[in-house]
Amino acid sequence: MAISSTDANAPTFSGTGDLADNTTSTAKIISFEPTYLQDLPHLTDYVPDLQSRPNPLDHNPYFHTVDGFYLTGSDVILRHITFDLSETFPSPSRHLAYHRAGPRKDIYFESSNVRAAIVTCGGLCPGMNTVIRELVTGLWDLYGVREIFGIVAGYRGFFSMEPRRLNPKLVHDWHKKGGTVLETSRGGFDLEKIVDAIEKHGFNQVYIIGGDGTMRGAVKIYNEIKRRKLNVGVAGIPKTVDNDIGIIDRSFGFQTAVEMAQQAISAAHVEAESAVNGIGLVKLMGRNVGHIALHATLGSRDVDCCLIPEVDFYLEGKGGLFEFLNQRLKENGHAVVVVAEGAGQDIIPRTEAQKEERDESGNLVFLDVGAWLKSELKNWWDRDHPGELFTVKYIDPTYMIRAVPANATDNLYCSLLAHSAIHGIMAGYTGFVAGPVNGNYAYIPLEDVAQAKNAVNTKDHKWSWVRSVTNQPDFVSC
Amino acid sequence: MAISSTDANAPTFSGTGDLADNTTSTAKIISFEPTYLQDLPHLTDYVPDLQSRPNPLDHNPYFHTVDGFYLTGSDVILRHITFDLSETFPSPSRHLAYHRAGPRKDIYFESSNVRAAIVTCGGLCPGMNTVIRELVTGLWDLYGVREIFGIVAGYRGFFSMEPRRLNPKLVHDWHKKGGTVLETSRGGFDLEKIVDAIEKHGFNQVYIIGGDGTMRGAVKIYNEIKRRKLNVGVAGIPKTVDNDIGIIDRSFGFQTAVEMAQQAISAAHVEAESAVNGIGLVKLMGRNVGHIALHATLGSRDVDCCLIPEVDFYLEGKGGLFEFLNQRLKENGHAVVVVAEGAGQDIIPRTEAQKEERDESGNLVFLDVGAWLKSELKNWWDRDHPGELFTVKYIDPTYMIRAVPANATDNLYCSLLAHSAIHGIMAGYTGFVAGPVNGNYAYIPLEDVAQAKNAVNTKDHKWSWVRSVTNQPDFVSC
Amino acid sequence: MAISSTDANAPTFSGTGDLADNTTSTAKIISFEPTYLQDLPHLTDYVPDLQSRPNPLDHNPYFHTVDGFYLTGSDVILRHITFDLSETFPSPSRHLAYHRAGPRKDIYFESSNVRAAIVTCGGLCPGMNTVIRELVTGLWDLYGVREIFGIVAGYRGFFSMEPRRLNPKLVHDWHKKGGTVLETSRGGFDLEKIVDAIEKHGFNQVYIIGGDGTMRGAVKIYNEIKRRKLNVGVAGIPKTVDNDIGIIDRSFGFQTAVEMAQQAISAAHVEAESAVNGIGLVKLMGRNVGHIALHATLGSRDVDCCLIPEVDFYLEGKGGLFEFLNQRLKENGHAVVVVAEGAGQDIIPRTEAQKEERDESGNLVFLDVGAWLKSELKNWWDRDHPGELFTVKYIDPTYMIRAVPANATDNLYCSLLAHSAIHGIMAGYTGFVAGPVNGNYAYIPLEDVAQAKNAVNTKDHKWSWVRSVTNQPDFVSC
Amino acid sequence: MAISSTDANAPTFSGTGDLADNTTSTAKIISFEPTYLQDLPHLTDYVPDLQSRPNPLDHNPYFHTVDGFYLTGSDVILRHITFDLSETFPSPSRHLAYHRAGPRKDIYFESSNVRAAIVTCGGLCPGMNTVIRELVTGLWDLYGVREIFGIVAGYRGFFSMEPRRLNPKLVHDWHKKGGTVLETSRGGFDLEKIVDAIEKHGFNQVYIIGGDGTMRGAVKIYNEIKRRKLNVGVAGIPKTVDNDIGIIDRSFGFQTAVEMAQQAISAAHVEAESAVNGIGLVKLMGRNVGHIALHATLGSRDVDCCLIPEVDFYLEGKGGLFEFLNQRLKENGHAVVVVAEGAGQDIIPRTEAQKEERDESGNLVFLDVGAWLKSELKNWWDRDHPGELFTVKYIDPTYMIRAVPANATDNLYCSLLAHSAIHGIMAGYTGFVAGPVNGNYAYIPLEDVAQAKNAVNTKDHKWSWVRSVTNQPDFVSC
Repeated sequence: MAISSTDANAPTFSGTGDLADNTTSTAKIISFEPTYLQDLPHLTDYVPDLQSRPNPLDHNPYFHTVDGFYLTGSDVILRHITFDLSETFPSPSRHLAYHRAGPRKDIYFESSNVRAAIVTCGGLCPGMNTVIRELVTGLWDLYGVREIFGIVAGYRGFFSMEPRRLNPKLVHDWHKKGGTVLETSRGGFDLEKIVDAIEKHGFNQVYIIGGDGTMRGAVKIYNEIKRRKLNVGVAGIPKTVDNDIGIIDRSFGFQTAVEMAQQAISAAHVEAESAVNGIGLVKLMGRNVGHIALHATLGSRDVDCCLIPEVDFYLEGKGGLFEFLNQRLKENGHAVVVVAEGAGQDIIPRTEAQKEERDESGNLVFLDVGAWLKSELKNWWDRDHPGELFTVKYIDPTYMIRAVPANATDNLYCSLLAHSAIHGIMAGYTGFVAGPVNGNYAYIPLEDVAQAKNAVNTKDHKWSWVRSVTNQPDFVSC
Repeated sequence: MAISSTDANAPTFSGTGDLADNTTSTAKIISFEPTYLQDLPHLTDYVPDLQSRPNPLDHNPYFHTVDGFYLTGSDVILRHITFDLSETFPSPSRHLAYHRAGPRKDIYFESSNVRAAIVTCGGLCPGMNTVIRELVTGLWDLYGVREIFGIVAGYRGFFSMEPRRLNPKLVHDWHKKGGTVLETSRGGFDLEKIVDAIEKHGFNQVYIIGGDGTMRGAVKIYNEIKRRKLNVGVAGIPKTVDNDIGIIDRSFGFQTAVEMAQQAISAAHVEAESAVNGIGLVKLMGRNVGHIALHATLGSRDVDCCLIPEVDFYLEGKGGLFEFLNQRLKENGHAVVVVAEGAGQDIIPRTEAQKEERDESGNLVFLDVGAWLKSELKNWWDRDHPGELFTVKYIDPTYMIRAVPANATDNLYCSLLAHSAIHGIMAGYTGFVAGPVNGNYAYIPLEDVAQAKNAVNTKDHKWSWVRSVTNQPDFVSC
Repeated sequence: MAISSTDANAPTFSGTGDLADNTTSTAKIISFEPTYLQDLPHLTDYVPDLQSRPNPLDHNPYFHTVDGFYLTGSDVILRHITFDLSETFPSPSRHLAYHRAGPRKDIYFESSNVRAAIVTCGGLCPGMNTVIRELVTGLWDLYGVREIFGIVAGYRGFFSMEPRRLNPKLVHDWHKKGGTVLETSRGGFDLEKIVDAIEKHGFNQVYIIGGDGTMRGAVKIYNEIKRRKLNVGVAGIPKTVDNDIGIIDRSFGFQTAVEMAQQAISAAHVEAESAVNGIGLVKLMGRNVGHIALHATLGSRDVDCCLIPEVDFYLEGKGGLFEFLNQRLKENGHAVVVVAEGAGQDIIPRTEAQKEERDESGNLVFLDVGAWLKSELKNWWDRDHPGELFTVKYIDPTYMIRAVPANATDNLYCSLLAHSAIHGIMAGYTGFVAGPVNGNYAYIPLEDVAQAKNAVNTKDHKWSWVRSVTNQPDFVSC
Repeated sequence: MAISSTDANAPTFSGTGDLADNTTSTAKIISFEPTYLQDLPHLTDYVPDLQSRPNPLDHNPYFHTVDGFYLTGSDVILRHITFDLSETFPSPSRHLAYHRAGPRKDIYFESSNVRAAIVTCGGLCPGMNTVIRELVTGLWDLYGVREIFGIVAGYRGFFSMEPRRLNPKLVHDWHKKGGTVLETSRGGFDLEKIVDAIEKHGFNQVYIIGGDGTMRGAVKIYNEIKRRKLNVGVAGIPKTVDNDIGIIDRSFGFQTAVEMAQQAISAAHVEAESAVNGIGLVKLMGRNVGHIALHATLGSRDVDCCLIPEVDFYLEGKGGLFEFLNQRLKENGHAVVVVAEGAGQDIIPRTEAQKEERDESGNLVFLDVGAWLKSELKNWWDRDHPGELFTVKYIDPTYMIRAVPANATDNLYCSLLAHSAIHGIMAGYTGFVAGPVNGNYAYIPLEDVAQAKNAVNTKDHKWSWVRSVTNQPDFVSC
């Protein structure tokens, strides 16, 4: 079945017939390439004498595990799928492959012995509750697990609060709620205390939902568990509304956020259109990456200029923002600007204090680019167009975006994420992340995901021509 | 830039460093494979002495065509990206590659000579107006084309109505409207009249938006144009809310439809929950394929059973629908059933007349599986549970789903589709479809797309384990 | 405070100053009228020696019962407020007044002795769950009642199912759900069994939520309770999405329904606009009255013709629907028709069987005016415009409208309804309905409400000029 | 027809029968009262020899002006409809009556001589475009007026910009857009220039849409026109999203704003629930009055405390906000606070500069109560609960609320407002406002409306018991 958009074609592919019969055009051989397979940690790597047993899905009353139900170690998905054939020194890893996610015929846990823990860390993101719900229902319905616990209020909850027992009836409607019923917090990471708590509570499956900082913590937990040789599987489920985690296609909640951002852009557009020389200014999430801003811009078609962290911009002079807006106001009488929260950090004047201050997760406290830009715009107009009417309406919809429930697309995605993670853990994999790679769910080493970034690649073919769609300045000064 | 979810990782890939530095795990060589490149029709194939000229984007005031802006013939995307390494006789076409979509350095049209025609055919689908809008603004803003026309009311409009002149100001807000401002109709295909009209009006770029029947018509138009050796580029833009066109990842409007379907499922769920032994029954679009039904089901998590054309089902007896619903009513007091309109066509009794009747597009008139199922459910209950309360609420939200404007995700998709088509046509390609393949926009021969189907592959790994998520019967009788 | 729209002005009125100081214009005496006060049943009418006690709100920790907090028997609201001064024989009841709803200083129940029952009957309507929630939280928080029960599945639930104990924690989120968590059913009314059950369970407060049939049942229950001289207060809360209950301003859920109906009208409009000679046809709720259809029509501004039960219409001939639509299609190329489900019942041909059939509530089974109209429109076109393109898209959004949660306006309304009912019951009133009369909450004898109809008055001034807004035919044949 | 909620009952009233036959209860005479009729300015007051002519609606092809279509000077609506019968010195104006709005049999304009001007002033409010659209279509369709102009960008547009010619085709879809297509601005009022421009352009009907400041300007324009004895009708249409204009029931856009505010409250609730000791803080519009905040609070049921300008509050000490929130956090772990922008202005510390600063409309610049409260909450927690987790999420959704299109309820309301104004102007009335009074559309002297305030009356019966619904502190210190 074509759950993701990207392998919708798979079913129509049928061996040699594809070239010989189904296509009218011709194809020629263009290259020969080796394919590499990415290794994946497994409990048997360090737990001796671990026994496998048949997957209990064989006896599920609801469906029959027909041929092809189980995936094996030879089911792989390619990581890199676009190539410039003219490259003279192609990377040896061009054809890196990951193990596909899904149920395995042999598993390494007995259902009645499983004690699973689920924790949510960091800021809110649409879909957190869906992931929790699906972990609970998946473990319960598919594998018969009955001991499932929610860790309350993030990492610190492992050692400072009583875990909350979860079951399908309790979590039934959680996917319709925004936020996380388990509550979340930033920081509170104490490796020893956390692993001690895991041992104390007897958890042998740990599902960690959080952003890049959380994933780095998960790597440490996994390593400490391995060091202690504990029979405990650890799976990470990346959560970042900004979509700033690499390797996987996108993070859950991202599309919901892009949809919700449309409301703010529409409002800014209406405010701008209804005023004389009106500018609507919207700040969207994205500390290090501009994905939400870019997607929201391209999804709206009402934005005149989109500023992201990956592209430097400047205000004054030829090719600058003011010149561009001046032109748009002349042409249309109004303009809409979208700015990612991390854009322009290096051109906003900082006090000495602001050069040091950091947030709870250790990130530099970002300056409010929206407030700064609003102020700069007003100053510019007063200076260059004294006495003329001018309006800037500034909207920061952050909390109204991230607190909504996941939409259907993200709900489906969260379901498959959760089930992928469960199947992987039950199969004995550990220290991994389940996530979509080119539209197919794969298992990726946790450590790789924790290190990978996902900035907008402004050197990429696609970026260039996509940018042309928006007709905005590229701030390349001559 | 990572516009689609599936190459979000590309920017982070940086040559050999990927294996050597960024990953902590190891990778081993698993295979050596040849890659084939799919050929693509081009105007120079049959128009002699066609001259290329530099892309006018070189002189766009808004941005600079930096290195990497233009794609070349060596930029390719792989079609097949999942493999079972254990297959003993792998297909020789395993590594089929398509040309990537995007602007080319040399083009084959002079902007001032272009006369472009856009036509929409078939039923409504969210995003049609966005595609039209983006074709108009893209041609106008990027390539300086000023002669752009909308063909009114589908194929028959070529020869029976006056084309409507379009410009960016006129189409400015069209993406916020459902349906198609150009109007649409089914049928009305007359090859000679259409190509005569193309010649008469002097169109040299034809953009055809429509479903599988429309794409088959587009192939005929392309072939006739080629036969007449006309210097006319033809691009197809597949429109099918059902997502039943193959090779491309998904069709535009599909995700919007899945989101809108949630409303109907929620209403059915509420009606079912609020009654004693309540059943909510929702019929969703999908004559030949169950994609909308399946995605809506997985996106909702409130559906007990989803019936699609690709999976036979039966009502009575062990493992049948009635037995399953009986059990759910006992457990929960209510149940929700989603049925794709094409499901169960072979088990609904037909009159002789119904065995012959066909719709305007030549498709067999489908029987109303929703009305039939509602009636069968009532009969079953009256027979097996006489005197007990029972309610079936049947909802058919088809027109309320397909008539909405595209959401942000589909708007962005439609924008990239339209711009991909423009770049391809301007570069001299013809008889092609622009569409996403594994998350990257590619050019595919029109003929291949017109033939490809996109059924839910029930033999596929992913289908099997996804089905397990829903916990519904598989209707495999023992 | 101005909760309803209609007395927003009250606070600004300050005695004689209004005429003398605040208004610049003059006012003259135009009439002298008597005012009548509507009597209201009270438990003391038939329960001897009933003792009153101070309202426990006096000791509520959250607020202080300042002067003016309590209403008394001399607080009244006028029922009729528009007059034609030229009428020669004005009604003696022109100035009928009702008791205003709200807390009373003396009440007739001791909190610890109250056992309250809440029941929901009939079809779904947005806001049912809010009313239940607010009855529970109001009784609990304001009056300290702890014994509150939900009767499951309508009237029959009194004697056939176990009541469900309710508390604020349990009902906390119910107002966010459509339908009724208590479940509902039609019919099942058995007077003796119900009142016996009330006695058996020891209920002394009964809150009945339902439509006109339910209210007539409530009158019987009240009368039987009175006959048995039981110390049991009965309050009716009219629920009718159609808004067909008289005296009160409007029924809860009505505005939510009107809002939701816009989606269906928009879809019909898009379908009509996107076709050649396209007609969008929407059937809306309203068996006897056309309020939803009319309000949805006036709220949308996209409807060409609205057909309601209160106005006869005809299809053929001069001034008929076909002539009108023909003209609209010529002018605009499309048209939208909204029809209330009860419209045209007398001109749709009926089989003999259909002349007898009745639904569970004893109402005549209505013929499907939508399906009939769709068929008649097609026949007409084929006959009068053979060969010309024509499309009718028919949408029946009934369940998608009535199953949604109440919007904010209806939520607020439901809250005040519930609290009004509680205050009235606690004050010893019985056999009454709490509801808004000219924007102020009043207590009205249950029997009056059960008999009052609320048809669209087509003889009224306002109707006439409102109709002119829509510019549709009045079907007055010459 | 019962367009407003409040006279839904009228149709069921039928003379003496109401008391004798339809009601089962008895009614007794309680008082005798005189009724006063409010005088209304008319062009004939100062324009000599003005001729009336028959209303052209008599010959409208679409409908027939049956008996009762036209209203006359004897059709009135009562302003005050609730009474405390025990008052010993009732106001002599208790029964003040206004003329009802609607078409008159005789009018004072010839359609072909009408030149109408429409202007929008002040901040955005949902429904402005609907009012404009309906003025245009009403004048055009009902009265055959063809010279209709929009004044661009507020009052200053009369003398500084070219009027924009309007017609039904142009404004067709405006009601689906937020904001005002005519653009708006604050200030720019210059009486002489405006009335000169009215004379110069030959406008004889002026429709002014704006807030209280705008209405005071309209009074001046009306008086100056009267002074110059110009044959120009002036109608005011009050626009204030805050609902702070008196006499009329509510202002257009208000209900839409209340609905939209729910999103912000929901987001705040989710943020609060998902954190440890989480507080969600929402600032809503309302500089002088708390209507939006109150209605949004009562419509949501998720708000713990609502602070409005009409009620003083304090932070520290017994009965203060901190104590209350402390208790809520202990009980529920989270709390939601809604604050109207005008609340607490007298307890926020002001700099000297802030004591003087005023906005473009001359209003005192309000301090940001939201930012202040957020800061105070953090300080309080750090002081009283050092080291404990605590989160405040502050949302200001102002522009996202006021920039949306009107919902169906407000669209309908705007339609009736516009048509009421047209009928009044055509009938020769001038210097008036058309608006709903107790649910019926009436004509009110512009001067009275310009002076009337609509604060939340905290001394009113209803306020008191409504407040009890929210269970929040009343900040009455002991």
